[in-house]
Amino acid sequence: MLLHQSTWQEVEAYLERSKGIIIPIGSTEQHGPNGLLGTDALCPEIIAHEASKASGLLVAPTFNVGIAQHHMAFAGTITLRPSTMLAAMQDWIDSLVRHGFERLYFLNGHGGNVATIQAAFAESYSDWSLSGESCPHRLKGRNWWELPGIMQICRDTFPVGDGSHATASEVAVTYYGYPDSIKDVKMTPKIAPDGDFADAADYRATFPDGRIGSDPSQATPEKGEAITLAARDALIAEATAFFNSDD
Amino acid sequence: MLLHQSTWQEVEAYLERSKGIIIPIGSTEQHGPNGLLGTDALCPEIIAHEASKASGLLVAPTFNVGIAQHHMAFAGTITLRPSTMLAAMQDWIDSLVRHGFERLYFLNGHGGNVATIQAAFAESYSDWSLSGESCPHRLKGRNWWELPGIMQICRDTFPVGDGSHATASEVAVTYYGYPDSIKDVKMTPKIAPDGDFADAADYRATFPDGRIGSDPSQATPEKGEAITLAARDALIAEATAFFNSDD
Amino acid sequence: MLLHQSTWQEVEAYLERSKGIIIPIGSTEQHGPNGLLGTDALCPEIIAHEASKASGLLVAPTFNVGIAQHHMAFAGTITLRPSTMLAAMQDWIDSLVRHGFERLYFLNGHGGNVATIQAAFAESYSDWSLSGESCPHRLKGRNWWELPGIMQICRDTFPVGDGSHATASEVAVTYYGYPDSIKDVKMTPKIAPDGDFADAADYRATFPDGRIGSDPSQATPEKGEAITLAARDALIAEATAFFNSDD
Amino acid sequence: MLLHQSTWQEVEAYLERSKGIIIPIGSTEQHGPNGLLGTDALCPEIIAHEASKASGLLVAPTFNVGIAQHHMAFAGTITLRPSTMLAAMQDWIDSLVRHGFERLYFLNGHGGNVATIQAAFAESYSDWSLSGESCPHRLKGRNWWELPGIMQICRDTFPVGDGSHATASEVAVTYYGYPDSIKDVKMTPKIAPDGDFADAADYRATFPDGRIGSDPSQATPEKGEAITLAARDALIAEATAFFNSDD
Amino acid sequence: MLLHQSTWQEVEAYLERSKGIIIPIGSTEQHGPNGLLGTDALCPEIIAHEASKASGLLVAPTFNVGIAQHHMAFAGTITLRPSTMLAAMQDWIDSLVRHGFERLYFLNGHGGNVATIQAAFAESYSDWSLSGESCPHRLKGRNWWELPGIMQICRDTFPVGDGSHATASEVAVTYYGYPDSIKDVKMTPKIAPDGDFADAADYRATFPDGRIGSDPSQATPEKGEAITLAARDALIAEATAFFNSDD
Amino acid sequence: MLLHQSTWQEVEAYLERSKGIIIPIGSTEQHGPNGLLGTDALCPEIIAHEASKASGLLVAPTFNVGIAQHHMAFAGTITLRPSTMLAAMQDWIDSLVRHGFERLYFLNGHGGNVATIQAAFAESYSDWSLSGESCPHRLKGRNWWELPGIMQICRDTFPVGDGSHATASEVAVTYYGYPDSIKDVKMTPKIAPDGDFADAADYRATFPDGRIGSDPSQATPEKGEAITLAARDALIAEATAFFNSDD
Repeated sequence: MLLHQSTWQEVEAYLERSKGIIIPIGSTEQHGPNGLLGTDALCPEIIAHEASKASGLLVAPTFNVGIAQHHMAFAGTITLRPSTMLAAMQDWIDSLVRHGFERLYFLNGHGGNVATIQAAFAESYSDWSLSGESCPHRLKGRNWWELPGIMQICRDTFPVGDGSHATASEVAVTYYGYPDSIKDVKMTPKIAPDGDFADAADYRATFPDGRIGSDPSQATPEKGEAITLAARDALIAEATAFFNSDD
Repeated sequence: MLLHQSTWQEVEAYLERSKGIIIPIGSTEQHGPNGLLGTDALCPEIIAHEASKASGLLVAPTFNVGIAQHHMAFAGTITLRPSTMLAAMQDWIDSLVRHGFERLYFLNGHGGNVATIQAAFAESYSDWSLSGESCPHRLKGRNWWELPGIMQICRDTFPVGDGSHATASEVAVTYYGYPDSIKDVKMTPKIAPDGDFADAADYRATFPDGRIGSDPSQATPEKGEAITLAARDALIAEATAFFNSDD
Repeated sequence: MLLHQSTWQEVEAYLERSKGIIIPIGSTEQHGPNGLLGTDALCPEIIAHEASKASGLLVAPTFNVGIAQHHMAFAGTITLRPSTMLAAMQDWIDSLVRHGFERLYFLNGHGGNVATIQAAFAESYSDWSLSGESCPHRLKGRNWWELPGIMQICRDTFPVGDGSHATASEVAVTYYGYPDSIKDVKMTPKIAPDGDFADAADYRATFPDGRIGSDPSQATPEKGEAITLAARDALIAEATAFFNSDD
Repeated sequence: MLLHQSTWQEVEAYLERSKGIIIPIGSTEQHGPNGLLGTDALCPEIIAHEASKASGLLVAPTFNVGIAQHHMAFAGTITLRPSTMLAAMQDWIDSLVRHGFERLYFLNGHGGNVATIQAAFAESYSDWSLSGESCPHRLKGRNWWELPGIMQICRDTFPVGDGSHATASEVAVTYYGYPDSIKDVKMTPKIAPDGDFADAADYRATFPDGRIGSDPSQATPEKGEAITLAARDALIAEATAFFNSDD
Repeated sequence: MLLHQSTWQEVEAYLERSKGIIIPIGSTEQHGPNGLLGTDALCPEIIAHEASKASGLLVAPTFNVGIAQHHMAFAGTITLRPSTMLAAMQDWIDSLVRHGFERLYFLNGHGGNVATIQAAFAESYSDWSLSGESCPHRLKGRNWWELPGIMQICRDTFPVGDGSHATASEVAVTYYGYPDSIKDVKMTPKIAPDGDFADAADYRATFPDGRIGSDPSQATPEKGEAITLAARDALIAEATAFFNSDD
Repeated sequence: MLLHQSTWQEVEAYLERSKGIIIPIGSTEQHGPNGLLGTDALCPEIIAHEASKASGLLVAPTFNVGIAQHHMAFAGTITLRPSTMLAAMQDWIDSLVRHGFERLYFLNGHGGNVATIQAAFAESYSDWSLSGESCPHRLKGRNWWELPGIMQICRDTFPVGDGSHATASEVAVTYYGYPDSIKDVKMTPKIAPDGDFADAADYRATFPDGRIGSDPSQATPEKGEAITLAARDALIAEATAFFNSDD
């Protein structure tokens, strides 16, 4: 059940049986020569939509632009400043909580979002913690590749060159979701360098084609399907447990 | 050409031939008994994607949550505060301008966004106007139903009960785009009341099922297709003229 | 009854009989060769003060600087950033609501303010809409030239060259209010060009002396008086209805 | 020369001969049983306008709402939060500096504004101090009653009961400026209590009719005129020296 | 009793007997050739810690960076923008008030902080004043050199060249607190110039070695001890009275 | 070399030989029955000061209040909202960068700060990444217990009950630094429970005395000294390498 493809009455009925919702959250940023700019938003969206189809869990629209300042030297990247993302997430959270949602599960597709997502959770809780009242809602963030069992599947699928940005795994998931957008590009070098980065200029100087440690030319829709379906099942299990928890 | 389904190199190549981009911008808010919560984001997205397919114009990801405070008494609605939307639009604009885009065309799907979009444009221009330097980019907002010729088509298609919120036209466009999400709901009353509103409680008291002046049970995918394709053509014409203009 | 020329006890007594207040809101920005920089603040102020004198309606001090970024290339213009104006209007609204005012009528003198005023209203309502409580106050914005019947009078008075910035009408109203500030300037060209604008540099390049589509040398205090008095009556009628409404 | 009653060309010409401008800044807040809510904005405005008439110095529109949180328990008071006032003053300063003004003299009418005005100056200078470049403009704040010689005149005019809020002096200045707004009210007690305050509830509890230490029933337009004209002369001298200074 | 060297149970027990807390607040900024960059934070901290030791009054951690924009042309200075300091002080105040503290005494070590501290107090009170409820807490700021009797001691100790920045007195207090950090530097000129300043470049141009009006080479730990102990006693008296007051 | 105990000339001289600075950053929050409220600020401060003494590396004042919303149900805790901390860190960073520092090493003492520190780094880099220019400075955050080799020492020292909040290790470090503040408290239960938390009420309900998974009654100054000195050496090595790096 996708929130944006439902009516308000359908959501109202859903709230009778569950207080939980999944929010895919990602980024719009370069993903190397054969990865889509939307990869980090599309992956959690694809997985969450599959989970919704299989389980009936409610999925919100995708928060599709995140913290991508370090990719700004590559055309097409869009970033929020962290202070903006704090404010925007606050409004999404406040809105959903207003309707009675008490378990908000952010399925994240971008490592660079993690810090700001956690800061946004603390910002939301702060209102309650400073007031002295008890906060009724719980916020959870999860990177899709860290769902139970998934990292192992990725490593098994791509024993060499899965990498850490523009990974073979994430490109594969998007190829499964968007087979019409498969790009046939030769990687040079085959496996991209590893390393750290600071701002956009530094990133581009260190990683000229945008990849970090990966050879995403290994990605295929079939491999993406396997990863996606495994992640789907892990998500259903984890989100369901979270929605049902009293903590 | 969709930005999030393209690589950065493809966007870089696009920038060689055009400085223009279309950004669908909408809202996630109740649309009555048979309208989707995502209607206002889906309509400009559907139209823009059709336009992109037909013309090659570049389309950004959809800015999918807007100003919907007045719909907050209906489950599933998500709103930004206007101050948050100003900040978020600023970051999107700054990011695209950084890459060399000079013509940003926001195709809007929600009347409630218009004021804040215009305020965001003024906020962006203010940086330049206060600095004394000349601003290289131009920002344009257009409600899809006000594209040349479209309002007439909507009125011809739905001479009675097109309405002003949860309109038959917009529901039809989403039914064209998402035929699996068609809802078969009887409207009571057949045509919803008209009127003004302030906050969410006021809105709900005046418009109990969310519609304003409309009978969206008239919507069909076929009617939606006709509107969408007309809007597509009007969008291509207007955006192309804007992208090529020197003003 | 002018708030700033009343005592607090007088305002307290007023609140016993009415919950409504008129707030003139304008801008400080160039108005061409013979228009005053204060035109857009002075017009709603003049009209509102006349209305107050004739009816006893309470009028607040004038919010005298607004969104004028596009006029910054002309000396003397002062602008707020839209985000600042949102915050300032919020504080004015919160203050008046604190005292028990429930109908706040902003009489606006500047087209460039409209979007931000509407965004500020949404910002104010958002607090209530997100809380789930019902908002006790109502906010209304009205451009003085769009008061019932006024645009027709302006067009009748100046059939040619009323224009859209530094209009003959608004200059006439200020000449009625400030006859000592009448400027005798020859317009070249007689009627200014029409068109669109973006930032300040763009505006100045397109409209070299600041006017848009107008020949304000037609303005006289007598014509201004006629417009002012008609607007006064229309304002009294509309504000009174608003103050008495239950919606 | 009043900015809002001048054209942009007149301001442009003024800038050829002076880089200085006076900005009256005040508050809209209760001033006891016979003082106007606008007193703190009207006093610096009256004095500055007199100075302008006598000297040709340029005067900006009045910044008419300030920090009045402590008066919020009295009807009609309007306050800005200090953070809002910082932002609004920043925009006024940035706008004037953009046109080439280099000496901004804020003539203040409200003790409660002093801290925030000084903080706003520091905020403006911070941009330059953090950049490492030299700031071309200078900001000066002055309470009108602290202009050289004025406090002595006030004390001589009202040896008993001038007080510190709703002072006899300030009420007299407004009575000179607005003789039609003179209020004939008996004070009980004749001289109001002295003391400190925190928030609005505390203020009201301590100072039931709003006055602090004053008997403003002594105010007359004649006494107000004497104070005003002396302040006018002191302002002309001080502002001229500031405008001409190289520091 | 120092808050940061206590357990939460100890603070909880303290709150049974007192609702008051002292917060040292200062700045990190140049203090001339022999003054420590931390002088303005260290002085109130040294005095408050002595007072705590002698009386058991609770002292919070030191707010150690303040408004120092004007010192930014000297290496090592760290400044907050006033708007940032407003926000940070708000969070400190909200936190302490949450625990039941009702009397917050800020012992300040930096003249440049005074305006922003007062603005922060007004920001805190504004929440209550705009809500219409009575604020339970009271905020007090005091510059340590203005504690009763202290200025006289400073002037008696340094009849010539105490000055107004990098004063002999404050350097002496830090030499008493940090005898290992005494710097033996010859002053040229012996007494620094007096005057005003605006931004950092202006300050450096006017006061080349950072001092204003002072000869801090007179500072000794012994003189610092005398000042510190006197300030300690004055602080205990004033804070105790404030903590016990009902106003 | 401590910045706040140095003169500006000493810092200027330091900048001739190094562009690096260490900033201890922590929190003021409950640390269970025998841990100091300042633990998380004191630990990095103690270690950094030891490192400075041993190596001459420059250490800034301690950023002593951080993200502690979840501890607000325990008296004495002080928190910043994440949005405030972003702004404050920005000002510290901007100030240090202004003087020519290019390597800012934040030695962190509080797990709850990590997300916001990383978000603050992204906020700082964003200015550069969006401008298109290359950022000259590098920002690094390190939790002191994750310095190379330290976690192992902590686990060896406290094989059972080191825990994850109010750890035996961190309490030991503060006991080494502040032997006069050692608290003799019996823990009940001996080892605190483990688990997750959200807001302050949730935290307190789950962890009644504030500890998570720890038995800090094992802490002694001797054990603290061993940990501190090992951390000191690891810090000197890592910070020196960072200061000298070209990346």
